[in-house]
Amino acid sequence: MYEALKCYGSSEMIHKLKNKDSLFLCVIASTLTSRITGITGAGATPELTDYTPAADVELVTLGKPLCLSEIPKTVIANTSTPTPAVITKASLDLSNIPILVADAGAAVKPNIPYINLNETPGGNINTGKAVVNSEKIFDKGFMLGKTLSKLTDHLIIGESTPAGTTTALGVLTAMGYEVNHKISGSTPENPHTLKHRVVENGLKLSGCKVGELKNDPFKAIDAVGDPMIPAVAGIVMGSNIPITLAGGTQMTAVCAVLKGIFPEFDFNSLSIATTIFVAEDENSDINFIANQISDICIFAVDPFFEKSKTQGLINYTKGSVKEGVGAGGAMFAAMLKGISIDEIRIRTEELCREIF
Amino acid sequence: MYEALKCYGSSEMIHKLKNKDSLFLCVIASTLTSRITGITGAGATPELTDYTPAADVELVTLGKPLCLSEIPKTVIANTSTPTPAVITKASLDLSNIPILVADAGAAVKPNIPYINLNETPGGNINTGKAVVNSEKIFDKGFMLGKTLSKLTDHLIIGESTPAGTTTALGVLTAMGYEVNHKISGSTPENPHTLKHRVVENGLKLSGCKVGELKNDPFKAIDAVGDPMIPAVAGIVMGSNIPITLAGGTQMTAVCAVLKGIFPEFDFNSLSIATTIFVAEDENSDINFIANQISDICIFAVDPFFEKSKTQGLINYTKGSVKEGVGAGGAMFAAMLKGISIDEIRIRTEELCREIF
Repeated sequence: MYEALKCYGSSEMIHKLKNKDSLFLCVIASTLTSRITGITGAGATPELTDYTPAADVELVTLGKPLCLSEIPKTVIANTSTPTPAVITKASLDLSNIPILVADAGAAVKPNIPYINLNETPGGNINTGKAVVNSEKIFDKGFMLGKTLSKLTDHLIIGESTPAGTTTALGVLTAMGYEVNHKISGSTPENPHTLKHRVVENGLKLSGCKVGELKNDPFKAIDAVGDPMIPAVAGIVMGSNIPITLAGGTQMTAVCAVLKGIFPEFDFNSLSIATTIFVAEDENSDINFIANQISDICIFAVDPFFEKSKTQGLINYTKGSVKEGVGAGGAMFAAMLKGISIDEIRIRTEELCREIF
Repeated sequence: MYEALKCYGSSEMIHKLKNKDSLFLCVIASTLTSRITGITGAGATPELTDYTPAADVELVTLGKPLCLSEIPKTVIANTSTPTPAVITKASLDLSNIPILVADAGAAVKPNIPYINLNETPGGNINTGKAVVNSEKIFDKGFMLGKTLSKLTDHLIIGESTPAGTTTALGVLTAMGYEVNHKISGSTPENPHTLKHRVVENGLKLSGCKVGELKNDPFKAIDAVGDPMIPAVAGIVMGSNIPITLAGGTQMTAVCAVLKGIFPEFDFNSLSIATTIFVAEDENSDINFIANQISDICIFAVDPFFEKSKTQGLINYTKGSVKEGVGAGGAMFAAMLKGISIDEIRIRTEELCREIF
């Protein structure tokens, strides 16, 4: 079962999570940062990134997006790669894991039931004014985490936040972590220089210096973060059950915020689960970032997309998209329920055929 | 345990529900109908009824309302009766039953995480244009019911909808049920004449005749209903677990809608749980209405408020408020978990002292 699963850190967590009731929560958010040309691949054009979070969760829930006429995709050199929402849907469908959606500030709201945590999208971090009152979003997340802990034994939290690696870079930079060329991205040529320039500019305009906000994560988010980060941090802090953060380097920003708020935070019942495309990416280093925060267990799932006949999925093996909508964590959770990675890949291919 | 519990219909349901994991969902909504002077007691003034649903669920979740400076109450002849949300809170706290909130169209949104089903409040049914597209609200409810069925074994659905008995009267009248002087109300002198006049006027303006919408419940709701009714009906229809509708005569309108949409609807895994103040009310008759729809099991809980030293609670025994925010169903669910009615009453009294 686990040949498709790599574990960085103690694999004891797997035994804690096996045979538990699981709930998948997808937290969605937008920022104007995603409108910066070339910064993200999470949408066919910068304007369409506004629709990506809503379309993603509509796709996972209903099998098709309602707010867009086609599914979100990354277009590079005329070849398009489908949103990782198809991987998430395949995994959750096969394992019968329920999904809830929480809005931390999506520009376009999904046309399905969703939990309201915050309505307003984030600004462009280039301005140094990214999020209005992240602490309030954290507090709402905290309440939600408390409630969800009573409804399941294992909470998997994914996200859809276009340009979210840039805003994660912002928070980690403001908090003093070494992240130079370590953050992931949704395109093969990760635009590190552009991302760093935007973050530095935003930090300068916010009046904060690099690294001075280690113990003030809310100020870091308000300056150069996004609304997803405090929402997920709050949900984790309010929970008392094992949590899987389903995402790539963005989730390390959540961990940094947790440690910043509560330095004694116990990372023993938390893990990050992502895809092999993030974990083995040569243009980023999730383990390097995580190790600076704590001894955080990281799982990476390999869906063997090189075996696929679907070009869009093969593009993942070449660095397109890599992760998102909790795809890595959803595969991980399905595998914990006994679903094989081949079943997941085959169902993902079927979904691509049905949806396209 | 059950001396405080009366059962109208088969008591077999109790065995189905005992020792089950339960989830309490409170569906909130507003209509401009509640602004009609004298029609409802769910707020100290007609304008304050806009705040009642949000304040109610804030109170149940946090122990105090955030959107109002004081808790919702019914004021009659200078004596005020607290919202039934205090009874709900006491019951859920003692039994450790989790609560989720769903917005079907509240005028004021609660400052806690809530599930978005519909944003827009209903109109004044006096105009014959009560709800815009109740079928869409039903569909969202359906999706939610499907998800929640995976998260619990027993769903208790309460509501907070000021003037909700008038809009329930509207739907039942439009669908041809005999409801003359049978619908409950939140004041001791239930303003039946006013309610019937408003409903008849609304039906006339909508171009529909009394009774002609038996098989078109969405049209009935759109004309003279409220947004809570299709939301709850959708949740029930989407669920595949036992459901307790926690409310009084308003919940019979939900049952009528269920039967109208799906004449073969199986009422065997559904029950209504309310307070003794509704069930034994001389100015209304929940059993008479329910029996016209189907063989629906109705539970009624008596918290023995005549034993209380809190005047606000004693007012319940004189016909004030009676029910709301799922108070009857929350007491019922707590009793199923082994909490005694004395514990519930005593905790309710404590909450009244703490909150006032």
